[in-house]
Amino acid sequence: MDYAEKVAVVNRYVEAFEKQDMAIIRDIYADNAVVEDPVGTDLHEGIEAVCAFYEGALSSGAKLAITGPVRSAANTAAFPFQVNMGEMSIDIIDVFEFDDQGKVVSMKAYWGPDNM
Amino acid sequence: MDYAEKVAVVNRYVEAFEKQDMAIIRDIYADNAVVEDPVGTDLHEGIEAVCAFYEGALSSGAKLAITGPVRSAANTAAFPFQVNMGEMSIDIIDVFEFDDQGKVVSMKAYWGPDNM
Repeated sequence: MDYAEKVAVVNRYVEAFEKQDMAIIRDIYADNAVVEDPVGTDLHEGIEAVCAFYEGALSSGAKLAITGPVRSAANTAAFPFQVNMGEMSIDIIDVFEFDDQGKVVSMKAYWGPDNM
Repeated sequence: MDYAEKVAVVNRYVEAFEKQDMAIIRDIYADNAVVEDPVGTDLHEGIEAVCAFYEGALSSGAKLAITGPVRSAANTAAFPFQVNMGEMSIDIIDVFEFDDQGKVVSMKAYWGPDNM
């Protein structure tokens, strides 16, 4: 999986929010994916739990704006972005880990109250 | 450890490079710290191995420029920056994990050839 493929997944992730399209989320993530958003909170484990989490997030109307280059080391992609929802915005860094099939098997989101 | 304290550690990290000051590095990191830079490469485990790694990095003359807000979730700080060394620059995201004493016990650096 090369850098361009990882960036393409990040761009599809942004598109999923833009279009409120759960099919993209379901396609990006592995069946055994684990999402921790934000880091330190309860895990969403497995594709159904992950999709349930995103159904809430997407339906909120939140949109993502990438604010810097996607960094990639080994099987990861780390990227800075803002979530914008009405007049609120949150600065976040997400770290994706990809499996051998190019699916996201782990997502960790770094943000807290001081980033709002 | 509140947000301002975490940001202060990040700023001291930048200062360590600016001043080529290993005493700052030694003070920031826990005795049992583990550094993975970039992610996917061999770990530097324990303060002496960590310091040996930074002696090389600091003496290279590399300087850091933070390029966005420090994100903090739970006991972590994640931040985007550029390393500048002569005409070369690299886009990186570092993730610090802090222990109960406010020392960095884990550092992971996300970057690769496509970020140079």
